[in-house]
Amino acid sequence: MMRFERVAVIGVGLIGGSVALALRRAGAVGRVVGIGRGRANLERALALGIIDEIADDAATGVAGADAVVVAAPVAQFAPVLAAVRNALASGAVITDAGSTKQDVVAAARGTLGARIDRFVPAHPIAGAERVGADAAREALFDGRNVVVTPLPETDPAALAAAEALWRTCGARVSRMTPAEHDAVFAAVSHLPHVLAYALVAMIAERDNAERLFGYAAGGFRDFTRIASSSPEMWRDICLANRESLVAEIDAYGTALQGLRSLVAAGDGAEIEHLFTDSRSARDAWLARAEGLGT
Amino acid sequence: MMRFERVAVIGVGLIGGSVALALRRAGAVGRVVGIGRGRANLERALALGIIDEIADDAATGVAGADAVVVAAPVAQFAPVLAAVRNALASGAVITDAGSTKQDVVAAARGTLGARIDRFVPAHPIAGAERVGADAAREALFDGRNVVVTPLPETDPAALAAAEALWRTCGARVSRMTPAEHDAVFAAVSHLPHVLAYALVAMIAERDNAERLFGYAAGGFRDFTRIASSSPEMWRDICLANRESLVAEIDAYGTALQGLRSLVAAGDGAEIEHLFTDSRSARDAWLARAEGLGT
Repeated sequence: MMRFERVAVIGVGLIGGSVALALRRAGAVGRVVGIGRGRANLERALALGIIDEIADDAATGVAGADAVVVAAPVAQFAPVLAAVRNALASGAVITDAGSTKQDVVAAARGTLGARIDRFVPAHPIAGAERVGADAAREALFDGRNVVVTPLPETDPAALAAAEALWRTCGARVSRMTPAEHDAVFAAVSHLPHVLAYALVAMIAERDNAERLFGYAAGGFRDFTRIASSSPEMWRDICLANRESLVAEIDAYGTALQGLRSLVAAGDGAEIEHLFTDSRSARDAWLARAEGLGT
Repeated sequence: MMRFERVAVIGVGLIGGSVALALRRAGAVGRVVGIGRGRANLERALALGIIDEIADDAATGVAGADAVVVAAPVAQFAPVLAAVRNALASGAVITDAGSTKQDVVAAARGTLGARIDRFVPAHPIAGAERVGADAAREALFDGRNVVVTPLPETDPAALAAAEALWRTCGARVSRMTPAEHDAVFAAVSHLPHVLAYALVAMIAERDNAERLFGYAAGGFRDFTRIASSSPEMWRDICLANRESLVAEIDAYGTALQGLRSLVAAGDGAEIEHLFTDSRSARDAWLARAEGLGT
């Protein structure tokens, strides 16, 4: 097992805090230093034993660290990476937890310079509805997917270290290119979020919204659960993955028009066919996912 | 409390069986006779104590009943109502559990003749993912909405009896016209089902479907849960409520195009605005719904 003597976590919230706890659980880390903009949250993380010390600034925090985990909002990546660039130890690895990857890579290329070879972009697929150090837990990544999107410049040793870090946290690690990553998650994550937000917004704008909500039940609740996600985070994801997301919205619009035509034409056989295929595909997916322990 | 000496349940599945159990729990029923096409399911309902006897046919079953609950698939309503029309006791009330109401009313008008005055269309808003007598439970309707859609011809005593029946089952009863009902549920139930089915079908048709599903997570699972609903039942709902549903699909298409434009234009402020309004509306709805115990 790879061991990290000193890990710097930038953004000690649900994700960053859980990385620290998971590495501790595995006995894979010496000291954890916490870096962030919210002093109260860092004090809380210290009190909870998630981190061992608070760094006054990012450069000080990453000095001497053999691994740096950037779990801050993606919009802060450019200034964060610029701030740590010159303080990085020569053999250190940097990985991140951003939900989009092409924009993160662009920010890294624009700020890390020659140190880009130490950067291993990553996206842990783990819930993000609760925030702050209090939400962190050591088992968050157990059995979850972490997608790493190495770059042509990525040093193989840095890639191995980052993948070992995520595996030590309990995750299953797979690789894609940044573009592949953003296309996949536009379809299975970003699009559903946009669809859920759009439905709730449409109903909320109606004159009889209160009556409509009054009869919404469990199906509506589950369908729209992701519309209670962070507006700021999802705004940033929409902007960062704009191109893939627009393509998916258009594809979905076409699919929905096809179904609309079947309904308008009263084509019961084709409607049932589509619903049956859909249910079969979903049930098969769930069976596989449960077999994998997720 | 109103008491029913003999209740006939046509279709002893999740809904019909739960009505029987809920009335028993309240001590509001003498004997329950079960009517249905599946003999094995009726035998099971008898063994479970949900019903006291099995009727050989619908006319025999409803004879002497003071309440008849039609919980069969909506597509079977016309033959079922035609079969029971002449066997109904003079003071009996008939209510149903169909998810759409204008088509049920049309079927009732076409078959019940002068007995239409005893018919109180109803829609209990309760989960329908499990089926058969084994799924029935006495608390299914506790705190749930039941919408009744009385007709101009409905006898006030029949309306009172049907509302008492559903309240005795633990439900909150409210009234709408059949058209209002179908418009409300097109928006908060039928549209979300169609949207979820369409998303899963679109992904399942892709060449890289397996990879895409491989990275779908909890948000996708909840968003698409209703795409595992019965294809036959939802086909029938789409056909029965075609007009309202098509109107809602079109309204949603317009709403989605609006959001697409914001994403394509990179209008972060308006995207965040829409997401924030959506989250606020959903969270306020959930807070109210939880306050009501649902």
